[in-house]
Amino acid sequence: MILFQSDYLEGAHPRILERLARMNQEQNNGYGEDEYCKSAAAVLRGLCLDDSLAVHFLTGGTQTNLTVIDAALRPHQAVITAATGHIHVHETGAVEATGHKILALPSEDGKLTASQIETVCLAHEIDGSREHTVQPGMVYVSNPTELGTIYSRQELREISDACRRHGLYLFLDGARLGYGLAAADNDLDLPCIAACTDVFYLGGTKCGALFGEAVVIRNDALKQDFRYLMKQKGGMLAKGWLLGLQFETLLEDGLYFQLAEHADRLADDLRDAFRAKGYSFLAENRTNQIFPIMPDRHLEQLNSRFGYSYEKRIDNRHSAVRFCTSWATTQDNVEKLKEAIRELG
Amino acid sequence: MILFQSDYLEGAHPRILERLARMNQEQNNGYGEDEYCKSAAAVLRGLCLDDSLAVHFLTGGTQTNLTVIDAALRPHQAVITAATGHIHVHETGAVEATGHKILALPSEDGKLTASQIETVCLAHEIDGSREHTVQPGMVYVSNPTELGTIYSRQELREISDACRRHGLYLFLDGARLGYGLAAADNDLDLPCIAACTDVFYLGGTKCGALFGEAVVIRNDALKQDFRYLMKQKGGMLAKGWLLGLQFETLLEDGLYFQLAEHADRLADDLRDAFRAKGYSFLAENRTNQIFPIMPDRHLEQLNSRFGYSYEKRIDNRHSAVRFCTSWATTQDNVEKLKEAIRELG
Amino acid sequence: MILFQSDYLEGAHPRILERLARMNQEQNNGYGEDEYCKSAAAVLRGLCLDDSLAVHFLTGGTQTNLTVIDAALRPHQAVITAATGHIHVHETGAVEATGHKILALPSEDGKLTASQIETVCLAHEIDGSREHTVQPGMVYVSNPTELGTIYSRQELREISDACRRHGLYLFLDGARLGYGLAAADNDLDLPCIAACTDVFYLGGTKCGALFGEAVVIRNDALKQDFRYLMKQKGGMLAKGWLLGLQFETLLEDGLYFQLAEHADRLADDLRDAFRAKGYSFLAENRTNQIFPIMPDRHLEQLNSRFGYSYEKRIDNRHSAVRFCTSWATTQDNVEKLKEAIRELG
Amino acid sequence: MILFQSDYLEGAHPRILERLARMNQEQNNGYGEDEYCKSAAAVLRGLCLDDSLAVHFLTGGTQTNLTVIDAALRPHQAVITAATGHIHVHETGAVEATGHKILALPSEDGKLTASQIETVCLAHEIDGSREHTVQPGMVYVSNPTELGTIYSRQELREISDACRRHGLYLFLDGARLGYGLAAADNDLDLPCIAACTDVFYLGGTKCGALFGEAVVIRNDALKQDFRYLMKQKGGMLAKGWLLGLQFETLLEDGLYFQLAEHADRLADDLRDAFRAKGYSFLAENRTNQIFPIMPDRHLEQLNSRFGYSYEKRIDNRHSAVRFCTSWATTQDNVEKLKEAIRELG
Repeated sequence: MILFQSDYLEGAHPRILERLARMNQEQNNGYGEDEYCKSAAAVLRGLCLDDSLAVHFLTGGTQTNLTVIDAALRPHQAVITAATGHIHVHETGAVEATGHKILALPSEDGKLTASQIETVCLAHEIDGSREHTVQPGMVYVSNPTELGTIYSRQELREISDACRRHGLYLFLDGARLGYGLAAADNDLDLPCIAACTDVFYLGGTKCGALFGEAVVIRNDALKQDFRYLMKQKGGMLAKGWLLGLQFETLLEDGLYFQLAEHADRLADDLRDAFRAKGYSFLAENRTNQIFPIMPDRHLEQLNSRFGYSYEKRIDNRHSAVRFCTSWATTQDNVEKLKEAIRELG
Repeated sequence: MILFQSDYLEGAHPRILERLARMNQEQNNGYGEDEYCKSAAAVLRGLCLDDSLAVHFLTGGTQTNLTVIDAALRPHQAVITAATGHIHVHETGAVEATGHKILALPSEDGKLTASQIETVCLAHEIDGSREHTVQPGMVYVSNPTELGTIYSRQELREISDACRRHGLYLFLDGARLGYGLAAADNDLDLPCIAACTDVFYLGGTKCGALFGEAVVIRNDALKQDFRYLMKQKGGMLAKGWLLGLQFETLLEDGLYFQLAEHADRLADDLRDAFRAKGYSFLAENRTNQIFPIMPDRHLEQLNSRFGYSYEKRIDNRHSAVRFCTSWATTQDNVEKLKEAIRELG
Repeated sequence: MILFQSDYLEGAHPRILERLARMNQEQNNGYGEDEYCKSAAAVLRGLCLDDSLAVHFLTGGTQTNLTVIDAALRPHQAVITAATGHIHVHETGAVEATGHKILALPSEDGKLTASQIETVCLAHEIDGSREHTVQPGMVYVSNPTELGTIYSRQELREISDACRRHGLYLFLDGARLGYGLAAADNDLDLPCIAACTDVFYLGGTKCGALFGEAVVIRNDALKQDFRYLMKQKGGMLAKGWLLGLQFETLLEDGLYFQLAEHADRLADDLRDAFRAKGYSFLAENRTNQIFPIMPDRHLEQLNSRFGYSYEKRIDNRHSAVRFCTSWATTQDNVEKLKEAIRELG
Repeated sequence: MILFQSDYLEGAHPRILERLARMNQEQNNGYGEDEYCKSAAAVLRGLCLDDSLAVHFLTGGTQTNLTVIDAALRPHQAVITAATGHIHVHETGAVEATGHKILALPSEDGKLTASQIETVCLAHEIDGSREHTVQPGMVYVSNPTELGTIYSRQELREISDACRRHGLYLFLDGARLGYGLAAADNDLDLPCIAACTDVFYLGGTKCGALFGEAVVIRNDALKQDFRYLMKQKGGMLAKGWLLGLQFETLLEDGLYFQLAEHADRLADDLRDAFRAKGYSFLAENRTNQIFPIMPDRHLEQLNSRFGYSYEKRIDNRHSAVRFCTSWATTQDNVEKLKEAIRELG
């Protein structure tokens, strides 16, 4: 079996394991107060061209989302997301468990628009009845989204402007950010993301690390006491240097972006193979997730040799599925899948 | 100004105030452990034809909803509601503040169907990924709904069956239950509601009391320690007999149902006047809330003399609004409004 | 039986019921946006000599405590209280249910000192490990305390100073505030309390109202969006004017303070009777709660005629109990109890 | 500098890193549904002599504590702990943030007794007022405790009996369990712990792993839906096999216990050196944490060469401090510290 169902099927880039083995006997301060974390944070600030950013490292996406959102909101405030957003559908109510409502807006492609945000805010600001509804306090976007789509520089700026007009924090979930930045049609970069958002994170788990997400905070109000929240939510790793070391390794000379580019090119290659077969896609994108809509009998033919994840039924003979590439996917396995696709019939 | 914007604009039925004045100097045990509460509970059990029911009194609807739902669910469980449900749109995230997600299903008329509940449950029971989504644990329905519509006996039974098949609690919000039971097209009654649901409440605030909701629990698991939850959420009134006395007065000889019938008949009367003017309605119902869709210029003509609540814009010249009758509405005021409607032009 | 176990055994001062009956058919806006609430708030601001105060009305003490504390604190912040504090021992974990830890400090007489607050703050501000403990964010005091004791002007000012030095909110629970202000040894007044605290409340439930607590907020940060919190926690009464009307009646011409004085004088009278019998007291105070330590055989002699509340066992023959007077206690009943005390043997 | 301030200063036992490097390119299912986790769970069940145990892997102690406790308790229930318990003083209110109160009992040596638990339960079961206090639902003990002390088989059984009599879950925090089981004066073993508790965990972070805690659940009620809670609280690691692999490596042939024994013997050695110098100890124990009470001037002499953690001031010339050994501590470093101790003056 060759598995394509996710981008966290393998361990970490070998360079990380080598460094880990080399420094294994070193004694380091705990809880992220070590030199590796300091150094990784400095590299990330440099990449964002902003020395004032606060950087923290957490172990996973759900934990990061719930910690950032709970740190930002007062009890009566809600977070706005696309209805497909990970926090709304794949985190077992983690945000609500911290006490906050999610306002989920319809979205075909996984993205929000500035105009949707405006509309929701106006609807919640009607004097006299507003205390009977939650108060929007934050906008959550993911880039790439759960459908692999990405925001353009223009779209992110408009969303950022809408948030500032209405006093909302803007939070970007970058669990797959590398794959977004490496997409053929991308025009975003880290300095723009850092400037447009109040807080975002750069994912390690899905992009070459064993685990870990790097949270980058621009807004001073969100910086305050963030480490308390990390500790309280169980996200402050005792051996925090494990996270610092990984991000330093990935970021100091561009490895992170090379790995993402590798995965995106393989995905483009696979996407062409699906397209050549005449399939349409649940969502059009150029990142590492491919969502072909396929005849069920074709899927059955693949089942014994290839893993993928099932997304949803389209009609009684077709389903949308997901194939992912990653930093660890080999050209060889992609060729095998391409050949199998060509032979479906 | 004559106000029709809600059904809680006046105090309480005079018989309640008279009894209150008469017993004002009596000494009673606090926290609902008094004779009035015991007696009111007994009357309610009799009306439901079920001696095993637990009955508790709380002060308001939001408080009752959040207390019942938090008492019922484990942390990873969610409550299913129509998207129009009060808990979803008019309680400032009170349910989420106790840690639970709300699964909101689309609904034109404010009602849920058994088939919608089936579909949601099946979608959340897919093995392997289900731990990444919340687990449905309860269904919340309101009767009448926020749009004044009511469930038939058949519909409620089907929902109840669906809940039992999937291990969900069924909770009925009866903040306006009297007005539902008195509706011309109603075929539900208290014994049926008590038997079909795990817990429901009978509203006092909107149906003749100063304030208060009577919670009726059939399911033994929900009975356990319910008073702890009442206390913790701030819903255990020190002078609990104020609630017992009111419900005893309303229920012991049918006053509650007479008041509701009065309001529903006046609403039917007003509804005919709106219909005669050619208006359509946001929702068709026979309870005490009327939702005409009116030209904005007609609304302007009413503004100086009559109060109503604004629901939503229909198009650039029409709006849906709400007029309520209540136990306190007079025939005289209804006649004045009818005449004003006739004269709109 | 003549009951002395609490100060919420009877209804309300008759003047309240009379006004309620008189205005019962009036139509008023809901949710505290009515003229009675406005007027009561204005009277209270006048009594506090501060026009900038925000005033809100809630239905009970536990609800008020949890709403104020959750409104004030970020998720990692805790509230400091005396270990005897109502929020720590008699509210079923209501504060923790909103997510906040209570830091309970030892106290013999129910009071905190400025120096205790200093010590706790310093212990939590130790750099390097502080993120592993909660951050103190508020001090909760009650006046009178749960042991009937009161703060002097000097003591409250010192606590207030300590709070400001360490960036803590000061919150005073005045569920029995009237009985504190009317005590023979009191030197506090409302302007001083309003100036020293960030938020306090003046209790109605135990001092002449059917129910209700008036929250007074001085600190602008706490004023923001407080009504959202009230709604979310289930504390925004639909017919809010019921609260405004009661406080207006109690406060507009000093009735509140006369009622408290009446109760305190009767308590002093009873206290003398206990003292004459040679009993000591669990706590010394001049307010409406009396805590004699009595031989168990004496208590048994009282049991058939008088109600009191049991506090705790002192040794195998003595117990501390509580007798309360209230606005509703009659001189006649006090005389009966005094006579019974004299005859114990 | 040679650091002794904690037992999580270094990486992992080399055997773990070697296996990790060897399987790095393997494709494994995510979220703990892989062969390594299955195998590690089977080994652990075998060590506990109970095939019915559920085993789950989480990334850290605070996360494990908050997840287990929130999974177990209804909203009005509290967890009992010694006042020194990690959940009470070093987790930033993590338990309260899930809504539950902690009942902290005084303890000199970090341990609870069965009799303390009895007393608390009786105090909370007094009919009539009990709904005004939280309901004890769980007892939390740590072994070794935060003071390095351990429970005897007899003590743990008595606590277990008390819990069962009062319907409380018993939860044992074994973040340092290896060091407890390897102590010279220990008579507990895994089968006894598994049988006495409802749930416990075996710590990896402090005992040879990079990170990770293995939760072992005996009580069926606690097994239900535990993975939902793990996901919701952010504790379900995407690459869960990282945890399974580490515990399999540590447990399959006794490495875990050898490492703990190594640390405990070195600690005994150091303890003798401190004792020879005439110091007393904050707590007497035979595990890997040593708590000497030392003259401040001696501590100053150590400061430039040795790291330790500061516990508390004893008097104006003495402080209690903590030195830890671990699986990674070398005999050589222990000799250097012993020599330095001998030379203090």
